[in-house]
Amino acid sequence: DYLSSQPSAMAKPQEPNRTKGYDPKKPHITDQPITRKNWYKHVNWLNCAFIVGMPLFGCIAAFWVPLQRKTAIWAVLYYFATGLGITAGYHRLWAHTSYSATLPLKIFLAGVGGGAVEGSIRWWARDHRAHHRYTDTEKDPYSVRKGLLYSHIGWMVMKQNPKRIGRTDISDLNDDQVVVWQHRHYLKVVLFTGLILPTLVAGLGWGDWVGGYIYAGILRIFFVQQATFCVNSLAHWLGEQPFDDRNSPRDHVVTALVTLGEGYHNFHHEFPSDYRNAIEWFQYDPTKWCIWAWKQLGLAYDLKQFRSNEIEKGRVQQMQKKLDQKRARLDWGVPLDQLPVLEWDDYVEQANNGRGLIAVAGVVHDVADFIKDHPGGKAMIRSGIGKDATAMFNGGVYNHSNAAHNLLSTMRVGVIRGGCEVEIWKRAQRENKDVHYIKD
Amino acid sequence: DYLSSQPSAMAKPQEPNRTKGYDPKKPHITDQPITRKNWYKHVNWLNCAFIVGMPLFGCIAAFWVPLQRKTAIWAVLYYFATGLGITAGYHRLWAHTSYSATLPLKIFLAGVGGGAVEGSIRWWARDHRAHHRYTDTEKDPYSVRKGLLYSHIGWMVMKQNPKRIGRTDISDLNDDQVVVWQHRHYLKVVLFTGLILPTLVAGLGWGDWVGGYIYAGILRIFFVQQATFCVNSLAHWLGEQPFDDRNSPRDHVVTALVTLGEGYHNFHHEFPSDYRNAIEWFQYDPTKWCIWAWKQLGLAYDLKQFRSNEIEKGRVQQMQKKLDQKRARLDWGVPLDQLPVLEWDDYVEQANNGRGLIAVAGVVHDVADFIKDHPGGKAMIRSGIGKDATAMFNGGVYNHSNAAHNLLSTMRVGVIRGGCEVEIWKRAQRENKDVHYIKD
Ligand code: HEM
Ligand code: HEM
Ligand SMILES: [Fe+2]
Ligand SMILES: [Fe+2]
Ligand SMILES: [Fe+2]
Ligand SMILES: [Fe+2]
Repeated sequence: DYLSSQPSAMAKPQEPNRTKGYDPKKPHITDQPITRKNWYKHVNWLNCAFIVGMPLFGCIAAFWVPLQRKTAIWAVLYYFATGLGITAGYHRLWAHTSYSATLPLKIFLAGVGGGAVEGSIRWWARDHRAHHRYTDTEKDPYSVRKGLLYSHIGWMVMKQNPKRIGRTDISDLNDDQVVVWQHRHYLKVVLFTGLILPTLVAGLGWGDWVGGYIYAGILRIFFVQQATFCVNSLAHWLGEQPFDDRNSPRDHVVTALVTLGEGYHNFHHEFPSDYRNAIEWFQYDPTKWCIWAWKQLGLAYDLKQFRSNEIEKGRVQQMQKKLDQKRARLDWGVPLDQLPVLEWDDYVEQANNGRGLIAVAGVVHDVADFIKDHPGGKAMIRSGIGKDATAMFNGGVYNHSNAAHNLLSTMRVGVIRGGCEVEIWKRAQRENKDVHYIKD
Repeated sequence: DYLSSQPSAMAKPQEPNRTKGYDPKKPHITDQPITRKNWYKHVNWLNCAFIVGMPLFGCIAAFWVPLQRKTAIWAVLYYFATGLGITAGYHRLWAHTSYSATLPLKIFLAGVGGGAVEGSIRWWARDHRAHHRYTDTEKDPYSVRKGLLYSHIGWMVMKQNPKRIGRTDISDLNDDQVVVWQHRHYLKVVLFTGLILPTLVAGLGWGDWVGGYIYAGILRIFFVQQATFCVNSLAHWLGEQPFDDRNSPRDHVVTALVTLGEGYHNFHHEFPSDYRNAIEWFQYDPTKWCIWAWKQLGLAYDLKQFRSNEIEKGRVQQMQKKLDQKRARLDWGVPLDQLPVLEWDDYVEQANNGRGLIAVAGVVHDVADFIKDHPGGKAMIRSGIGKDATAMFNGGVYNHSNAAHNLLSTMRVGVIRGGCEVEIWKRAQRENKDVHYIKD
């Protein structure tokens, strides 16, 4: 069979991926544009049956089937079980190996995960790894750049060229007996955990065979599918980006509520092998809570977690990026190297001739328009005109606030050759040959 | 009189500041420690009467005086009027000259401000300027460093050495006829707007003379005093510091609610001559709203406002400061200059001998412990061992996330002499004399 024909660790594009009989050498339908004549060849009718036809049938049937209380409770419980099969099983265990599971837990997750009717683990995890490795690019199987609807269900409703999807390493999945078994017997698994089991429980339990079939089976599948599909659509579209904003993944509590905790997706794309998606105790991540509980029960082990040092580093860098963007939009005054150079004596002369110039730290500032607004009074600021006000400004008279320093820098008009006044006095000393000047 | 004896722009310590007959040459009571025998000399009994005795009398009297609805409404309205006298008048107009007022508005503010019984404008504004200029130091008249209670009322209840309080320029106040007039006739003003006017309105209006006196007079004074004192205490103690955290002022909505909008005190200390304390429309600053309304009515003009560019600069710098503190607490890996220098051939040899070493961008990393956790799979990361993985790591195979770069830097063990592998090949070229090597 095909598994033994995989010598390399990498999954090849020609690996069968749910569509049997695919021949990479033949031209693929997606190589042709969609026209009036060939559009039906572009549609993936099998997927359509599973994610559009079946729920439609369920909705219509529900008009004639009364919903019993026990069946409703069972449908909701089974909704959570099959949802966990996807989030804790397909996603965090197999796609990301963010923890290890014992055989019983693996069989349980492979079973209920299959009941969500979203393809085999092998197929799902392969696409998902490509999604992480090639996020937002042409090789991303459900890139949100192609539209929200495309990332939600479009990519399944329409046929995809298998060559387009990026390649990833799934050697670990090919070595996993549960994955291989589920992939091989996928249709039987789907039929049993997707429809037969929920019907059986309601039928044998309280005699509601039809209700079990329609509500816990068909309609429950519809809701689980739509909810988990939100991880590909909503989670790349709605919310904040606290860790990295180069790509589309986002954190939002609404997405988390819908997807059993997979809504902290900016975190998840940055730290994909962390068994958590939410790192704060107050955030909603029931998938994480279950994995943790399984660990306490001895069913799960080796839960992977990034050090909080690494997580905080990401947060700090993203904040820095945002801050730098904000800083770049503000006026910080003329850069010092773009200012004209003045002689000290010129500065004093111009100030004596009535210009409102003040030198602070070797930079000349035109404060004329600000004198009347000076919070410390007109007399104070006037006392610095034509002088070296460095010391006055920095605590000699008043230790000006940060805001005052910022404001001052917007008033720059020149720099003084040699820097501060003291340099001028040194020069005077040198010129006055009587005094001995020690050069350093 | 003393005003004409002020040749300089600066207020001198010996200027009479409500306590007449103060002689700066005589030793002051505060030079002596408080003892059992002299404690009563340390108490400022006049202030005690105004801020402790009077309200006490009002509270007791209130037991026998029924509160009428009209009087209650009048007391609340007059509370706001006298509060505004302090916030819009004493504080923003006179202490900070954050806007200009026409004569009618000045007279109104000087009148109702006096009715709050917190001293004359001249005395209040002088202390307040010292508070801004010497915030949190020994020269700050109500430094919160001496305790919350001290900053609230302690500084008034106990006598202060006038020499201790910092000096400030109040020449503009000495030139303001309304300020001078209010200071000279302060007691008459207090009696009239503090007690007589509120009593008259309730008495002549609806015959409630005693109620007007107790509720709109005495008790209203008590509430206005306590509320505005919160600017000195609560505003330096409770809340956030979005603009500068070197000193104590803080922003808090609770303080704003209590003080007619003076609660955005971190902003205010940074931008004292801005007529606003709250800059966002949704923040509570009724004092600002009144000043703005007076402007529309032609009563106020020249409202000063810092450019939002200056305000945002302060915010960005404070955020940067916080971010730098956060960054400093994190582990960013061994700095490059503290790493041992390796030869390329040593690196390859050690990797061949079984060490999990990977060179990226001229730095050698020990990834041995990470191989099993690598989110991209064991095979991928192993393929970089003993090689120059710079290109692989940076997009050649996978364009690693920011988090991956951060993690990598914690695994540093050495730097390669000459940098990347390419240098080694250049050297090989040079040594192989057949090839011509152009030195740059
Ligand atoms: C050269 C340009 C100047 C600028 C842009 C400037 C700006 C400011 C600003 C924005 C404030 C209020 C913020 C704060 O509390 O720090 C202030 C306050 C003050 N400035 Fe200046 N200043 C200048 C020069 C001077 C000079 C030369 C002196 C004295 C020699 C002086 C003395 C004071 C004093 C005493 C205060 C405190 C006012 C108070 O809060 O009562 N300033 N200045
Ligand atoms: C040298 C130390 C390495 C470190 C610290 C490291 C770290 C990581 C981390 C944290 C991720 C998951 C985060 C993300 O999506 O970017 C990752 C993913 C990946 N790494 Fe590495 N890596 C290393 C070396 C390599 C090498 C040498 C290769 C290949 C030559 C490689 C290939 C990949 C691939 C393909 C993924 C994507 C996995 C997926 O999301 O499916 N890594 N790496
Ligand atoms: Fe995603
Ligand atoms: Fe994922
Ligand atoms: Fe203050
Ligand atoms: Fe103030």
